[in-house]
Amino acid sequence: MNSLKSKLYEIIFEADTKSGKWFDIILIVLILLSIIIVMMESDSRILSHAGTWITLIEWGVTILFTIEYLLRIWILEKPGKYIFSFYGIIDLLAILPSFIGLFFSGTQMLIVLRSLRLLRIFRVLKLTRYVKEATILWEALASGRNKIGVFLFVVLILITILGTIMYLIESPVNNGFRSIPESIYWAVVTLTTVGYGDIAPVTTLGKFVAGVIMITGYAIIAVPTGIVTSELAKEFTRKTPTNTQICSQCFKDNHEDDALYCKHCGGSLKNE
Amino acid sequence: MNSLKSKLYEIIFEADTKSGKWFDIILIVLILLSIIIVMMESDSRILSHAGTWITLIEWGVTILFTIEYLLRIWILEKPGKYIFSFYGIIDLLAILPSFIGLFFSGTQMLIVLRSLRLLRIFRVLKLTRYVKEATILWEALASGRNKIGVFLFVVLILITILGTIMYLIESPVNNGFRSIPESIYWAVVTLTTVGYGDIAPVTTLGKFVAGVIMITGYAIIAVPTGIVTSELAKEFTRKTPTNTQICSQCFKDNHEDDALYCKHCGGSLKNE
Amino acid sequence: MNSLKSKLYEIIFEADTKSGKWFDIILIVLILLSIIIVMMESDSRILSHAGTWITLIEWGVTILFTIEYLLRIWILEKPGKYIFSFYGIIDLLAILPSFIGLFFSGTQMLIVLRSLRLLRIFRVLKLTRYVKEATILWEALASGRNKIGVFLFVVLILITILGTIMYLIESPVNNGFRSIPESIYWAVVTLTTVGYGDIAPVTTLGKFVAGVIMITGYAIIAVPTGIVTSELAKEFTRKTPTNTQICSQCFKDNHEDDALYCKHCGGSLKNE
Amino acid sequence: MNSLKSKLYEIIFEADTKSGKWFDIILIVLILLSIIIVMMESDSRILSHAGTWITLIEWGVTILFTIEYLLRIWILEKPGKYIFSFYGIIDLLAILPSFIGLFFSGTQMLIVLRSLRLLRIFRVLKLTRYVKEATILWEALASGRNKIGVFLFVVLILITILGTIMYLIESPVNNGFRSIPESIYWAVVTLTTVGYGDIAPVTTLGKFVAGVIMITGYAIIAVPTGIVTSELAKEFTRKTPTNTQICSQCFKDNHEDDALYCKHCGGSLKNE
Repeated sequence: MNSLKSKLYEIIFEADTKSGKWFDIILIVLILLSIIIVMMESDSRILSHAGTWITLIEWGVTILFTIEYLLRIWILEKPGKYIFSFYGIIDLLAILPSFIGLFFSGTQMLIVLRSLRLLRIFRVLKLTRYVKEATILWEALASGRNKIGVFLFVVLILITILGTIMYLIESPVNNGFRSIPESIYWAVVTLTTVGYGDIAPVTTLGKFVAGVIMITGYAIIAVPTGIVTSELAKEFTRKTPTNTQICSQCFKDNHEDDALYCKHCGGSLKNE
Repeated sequence: MNSLKSKLYEIIFEADTKSGKWFDIILIVLILLSIIIVMMESDSRILSHAGTWITLIEWGVTILFTIEYLLRIWILEKPGKYIFSFYGIIDLLAILPSFIGLFFSGTQMLIVLRSLRLLRIFRVLKLTRYVKEATILWEALASGRNKIGVFLFVVLILITILGTIMYLIESPVNNGFRSIPESIYWAVVTLTTVGYGDIAPVTTLGKFVAGVIMITGYAIIAVPTGIVTSELAKEFTRKTPTNTQICSQCFKDNHEDDALYCKHCGGSLKNE
Repeated sequence: MNSLKSKLYEIIFEADTKSGKWFDIILIVLILLSIIIVMMESDSRILSHAGTWITLIEWGVTILFTIEYLLRIWILEKPGKYIFSFYGIIDLLAILPSFIGLFFSGTQMLIVLRSLRLLRIFRVLKLTRYVKEATILWEALASGRNKIGVFLFVVLILITILGTIMYLIESPVNNGFRSIPESIYWAVVTLTTVGYGDIAPVTTLGKFVAGVIMITGYAIIAVPTGIVTSELAKEFTRKTPTNTQICSQCFKDNHEDDALYCKHCGGSLKNE
Repeated sequence: MNSLKSKLYEIIFEADTKSGKWFDIILIVLILLSIIIVMMESDSRILSHAGTWITLIEWGVTILFTIEYLLRIWILEKPGKYIFSFYGIIDLLAILPSFIGLFFSGTQMLIVLRSLRLLRIFRVLKLTRYVKEATILWEALASGRNKIGVFLFVVLILITILGTIMYLIESPVNNGFRSIPESIYWAVVTLTTVGYGDIAPVTTLGKFVAGVIMITGYAIIAVPTGIVTSELAKEFTRKTPTNTQICSQCFKDNHEDDALYCKHCGGSLKNE
């Protein structure tokens, strides 16, 4: 019994063994399948054509997820920690809606519940822990966190003021600038250069101010890029050329990766 | 009396003590509340439903702001300097509109006046003086000021010429390019990649020229980013390797990592 | 015979001789001409006016391409390798449609087939092998491949979740958010700051969430730029300070500027 | 006579003397005024209200420009070189239209002619020769010219292929993708993230492909930014920290700007 448990533990919780890797891959495929099913269910045209197939696959995935969930609880010695963890709750939320759907029949309610299954996508993210690059990116963003925060705060103030100015200019003649919040929404759409065009200035003064805002936004968009680039450059230089080789004769470091001899004194670096 | 004044001074004007910090936090909350009220007032739908509540909160905030304003004047020995300072005028403009509103009743006029309260948002900015990151960002932008200015000037010339060319091409058939200023507005919207779509070329030649403008803009958008990134990188490297070495003779710091002698007095840094 | 073959080989397959360069230039012009013809053919207005000219030029180009294709096969000793290579198939696909068009007359089918000729544009790319800059850009992108991949993966997850959230908020009242896939399409359009405006939020909550998404996208757009810039900067610095020093003992180059001894064999670099 | 000529030469052609600077400033103001007049003339609403004023200012500016042009020719010993130079032709084109307008009365023709006056804006650019920053920016862009060129070439190929793919997918049902050139226009609008929305995919497959194009464009937009940033960073580091101070005792350089003593040997840097 215990050997079965420990074997299952290896498969489900570890990713180093061959069977563990296969389990991870199958899990990712199943999660992606379940997400595609949720997406297709939301489209009434697809639902009317392939409703039976969707129901079938949905229940197949739900049952497999339920087995996986129960196995995880059975294997672990202290299942409580898992059940109330972030991933534990997500795993439960991924299977509950289908069972609740058996008893209730409110459409809108069910769509919201089923959408919760999408959260399982985070599992895919967790399974990619072997990708080292993510760490570098994350550290760069984390170390630039404060600066990006300050920047976003300034942008928020700017957007509030610009939105109010445009509201004062445009609201008398333009239906799109009905209230300050809507004008702020317009300012966000404009400053981020998204520019839907659902709200656009119509007065000459409004167009002039909008033009000034856009050109300002042009310079502003440079700031987060500058922050992230600087942080990434720092992160890269810290990681990349650190060659730990030290010359055994002059004890100087900072040698290139392909160096065989010390560039300072000519001593051999081989016998390291 | 004086001890009360000095205690109030500590609370209102300083941020180091515990009560000073609490005062700052309450002030920020009140300012944000008053801004939300101004925003809600601008929306006629909200105003018709929750008008009484909005008036109530508005007067509550106004009274608290008035007390704060009078206290600031009373505490200071030379209140004139504060009253005519940037923040002093903003603080006054934040409370005046409500009192003026008692005597006047022109809607449009009142909205403009009430919007002035939004300017108090700058106080929040001032209260964040403890955020050191803002200084780094600001210095980077300030040192790149000239270059960004030159760049914006070139963009302005470009936009004028491009707008005129598109006016000549499109104006005969396209209502959106009625005049050169409107064509320049279109050029701004396009070159900044906002792209509302309220004005868009319809002739084949116009579309071709627009395409060339967009691809040009693609390369141009890189320039401010390049400037800010380079300045930020400089700023970071200047700040980062702050060597903790302090000269034992002149006690100045900020030495480079490879410095062996103090660059200020020539004293040796070795015996540290 | 053999001397004719080897001369033709020089002209068609090599770019170093004068006649080889001329052949390349004429080929590029012909390819661009054939592409312009395909484009004009797709426009029914142009087709109705200048149909005869287009057919004439089309057949002229097709015959020249056919001659070139047959020559390539005839010259090469082992033509099989060329015929089944990427460029061989493209060259065949560029001439086949015109001949197939003689027997079939389905309009839509023919357009698809003729569009295949556009693939010959890759030949132009191949002929620009003398541009060294492409290599640097390509290496920078290739070395940042993993990081950009991780980033795009995170963006995909983000887009899925944001699309679903907006679907839940907007679908009851907004026809543009009919299904989750369409909402995801909207999220892509918004997060990349394209912003067509064909789908836009109409509810207050939807606009608020959209605003948050845009400001997030503002910070996110910085990441790929940061990656590419850092990689390019690395690539440049690796290429730039190519010290012209060559070791007098092992004749290897690529030494650092401050190197005194060869890092490959330990020989002194001083006496250069 | 000669002394008058040489004095006028100083004023008109040189910018170092006080009167020369004033001449430059007045010229810039006049050029900007003439540009504003051209813009206002293009707007039929403004023209009908303030037509007389516009005509008056237009003739005033034209006469001043004519005097300036004639003076330039009179002063120079070899006026031919100026007359046929870039700026000479622009100066002539700026005054000719008004005189031609006396004899002709075709509206559209006159607008085109008058727009030529906008080209005088380049004079403003020339007068800003004292701005050193422009040189740095220009050199950075110039040294990255080849790389940006290669990049734009790849983007052009990409846009052609993407436009054709979207044409094949959308043209049967979408009026916006009538021909390949229009689809390519759409691809430019999308890839540069302008996104007017005048042409947008309507089929599910079209939306999917458009989404892939946008996310690709997301990564592509990073490349020119990366190029410019790297070049600017190189340009900055080359210009900025070059302190020409060399220690008089150990002859080492690369001292910081505020260094008073050599950081290598402690020798004084003052007596330089």
